[in-house]
Amino acid sequence: MTIASRMAAAMQSSSWIRRMFEEGAELKARLGADRVYDFTLGNPDLEPPAAVKEALLAAVQDDRTGLHGYMPNAGLPATRQAVAAHLSQVHGLSFSPDDIIMTCGAAGALNVILKAILDPWDEVIVLAPFFPEYLFYVENHGGVVRVVETDRDFVPVVSRIEEAINDHTRAVIINSPNNPTGQVYGADLLHSLGGMLAVQSRRYGRPIYLINDEPYRRLVYDQVEVPSVFQAYADAVVATSFSKDLSIPGERLGYLAVNPQAQGRQELIAAMILANRILGYVNAPALMQRALVNLLGTSVDIAPYVRRRELFCRILAESGYQFVTPKGAFYLFPKAPLDDDVAFVQALKEENILAVPGRGFGRPGYFRLAFCVPENTIVAAAPGFARVRQRLAPGT
Amino acid sequence: MTIASRMAAAMQSSSWIRRMFEEGAELKARLGADRVYDFTLGNPDLEPPAAVKEALLAAVQDDRTGLHGYMPNAGLPATRQAVAAHLSQVHGLSFSPDDIIMTCGAAGALNVILKAILDPWDEVIVLAPFFPEYLFYVENHGGVVRVVETDRDFVPVVSRIEEAINDHTRAVIINSPNNPTGQVYGADLLHSLGGMLAVQSRRYGRPIYLINDEPYRRLVYDQVEVPSVFQAYADAVVATSFSKDLSIPGERLGYLAVNPQAQGRQELIAAMILANRILGYVNAPALMQRALVNLLGTSVDIAPYVRRRELFCRILAESGYQFVTPKGAFYLFPKAPLDDDVAFVQALKEENILAVPGRGFGRPGYFRLAFCVPENTIVAAAPGFARVRQRLAPGT
Repeated sequence: MTIASRMAAAMQSSSWIRRMFEEGAELKARLGADRVYDFTLGNPDLEPPAAVKEALLAAVQDDRTGLHGYMPNAGLPATRQAVAAHLSQVHGLSFSPDDIIMTCGAAGALNVILKAILDPWDEVIVLAPFFPEYLFYVENHGGVVRVVETDRDFVPVVSRIEEAINDHTRAVIINSPNNPTGQVYGADLLHSLGGMLAVQSRRYGRPIYLINDEPYRRLVYDQVEVPSVFQAYADAVVATSFSKDLSIPGERLGYLAVNPQAQGRQELIAAMILANRILGYVNAPALMQRALVNLLGTSVDIAPYVRRRELFCRILAESGYQFVTPKGAFYLFPKAPLDDDVAFVQALKEENILAVPGRGFGRPGYFRLAFCVPENTIVAAAPGFARVRQRLAPGT
Repeated sequence: MTIASRMAAAMQSSSWIRRMFEEGAELKARLGADRVYDFTLGNPDLEPPAAVKEALLAAVQDDRTGLHGYMPNAGLPATRQAVAAHLSQVHGLSFSPDDIIMTCGAAGALNVILKAILDPWDEVIVLAPFFPEYLFYVENHGGVVRVVETDRDFVPVVSRIEEAINDHTRAVIINSPNNPTGQVYGADLLHSLGGMLAVQSRRYGRPIYLINDEPYRRLVYDQVEVPSVFQAYADAVVATSFSKDLSIPGERLGYLAVNPQAQGRQELIAAMILANRILGYVNAPALMQRALVNLLGTSVDIAPYVRRRELFCRILAESGYQFVTPKGAFYLFPKAPLDDDVAFVQALKEENILAVPGRGFGRPGYFRLAFCVPENTIVAAAPGFARVRQRLAPGT
């Protein structure tokens, strides 16, 4: 074999989504893309706000020297200052630029955080259903994932997390607003989780970090609030990106922020800055960092997501699907009418509907639908959803 | 301790360059930056060619939809097509877009390559003196570095490399044109190295990859040619960036290319694409990728580097320093007039000259000077170089 055996294993385990993608591509090639209803991809389809183009034009036209050069590995001071001011407002805490590291998206941020804190065999708790990339990110740095199930509404259960902690536990990754479930964790839950982690950190003599991956923070519905993880726990770190806020996932711009109250904050930040360098990111792209300084108050208009969510929920409910109405993000995670979610997703495919089986997210028996697609795609898929439901679970 | 113990060790071992940087910053703060002659940083100081700005403006003003969105993890098809056409011309081989993965700079490319091929305890041969980041990149993915010394002119010795190979060896990293020495490896040497690696690969039953990190390919002097590593060996991979060609190191754009003749090419490329994704790069920045399509024939005018190299070589020679005249890149790696390179660099600092000790690159007794600085900085430092040489090794 030419490649590493663990990469061969990773390619095998990542094959669900790839297989769905390949089968979908084959279907589209056969029927035409407009006759296939593809709900598999969490790829924001809205265009960036006009301000993004303006900010990029200004950044490109800036004639000062050295603007495309190397910079501190943590990022441009002016950009980190702008992010710190923004975070201070959002979280009601005083952030300084030194609490911020600009990264290549949230994926880059999570890898930097994990690289800084994990020695081989250290454990990270991940809550199912989960964004499957977390498993890779932890394994990249020699860590071991411990999966803890959320409840039937996809809400974390603090006592279950507590039971999973031992002296190898270095972090808990949460993701609120959540992919794939759309769940948003409330302030009480976060405080309860933070309180438990504070006790366990003292017990084991070093901090257990609470990492919130929160790229969907601004993408919430029905006036739901996303509480601050920093308010709930001192040893909290946030990873996020502008992929959804500004609809620029291809530009790879994100950041990580460390609670100004975290233990050993300076050492932690220094390790993360070194991790950003030695993992080969070196720094987040310079031009996007400069554009960002003027974009922190900007966000895509989420009205299309609001309409699609209502529409999709109505269509699924009318056909008898059971699901938790998403409070945020752009996913639905309904219960499959069959125990076998893979067989169910195959049945959907016969109606030219593409979805991802729940087992890809660590919860078999469910399926994920991404609603970053035009409303007419959702409408056109409605009869297919109804027929499959009727055929597989008639009268229930 | 809040951070991983191996990161604490990495912070310790990376402290040479940091310490130089901090001492330099302190000196500059005290004396004024214009009175300190800083030759420590390999940061291209030329501005990007005008075509870069034009290409970026066109890319920002392009009004098609989805241009800032997710893309295949390997990069934009049009960009990979342009790189493949460029490489076909340079190497006299037929590259297809499938042989190319766009990356976050050469640092990203190297991490992606190593992630794809290394299992824990696999070995990678690195030639001293070396770019010190290689040690981190190999360790990131659980690999073990085996250092092999080059000869006194910094030329690799094939028999020494052969002796270091065992059944754990997965790759040899070379860097031609070289940082820190300026050496460029000739075609005969590469063919001899390739021939030996082909024999050893057959012996151990799997390919030992030859990885050339070649971001300085276009930065060569006296009509030196940089021979193709692909012509010399089938299982060759190139990692490179546009940081030096276009003077855009902050923008993090590079690529890796696999020899179209490599064994198990498809599997290798597939593993690298997955590595690009799961290491959190996801894809190289979209906007720069689009701009690049029109920039592959473009390069900074290297005339300033040519003049600085001549000037610096003359000044050092006149003061009696021994060095190998660099054939490429923008570094000099002279012998220190003291065995103790750290003490020598401290002596230079007393003349307000900042350099990096050779032991930072795995070869004590030497020191590195980066000449990506204005000519007048080199001229102004000349008396200091002469005085230190005279004081430490009078009459030799």
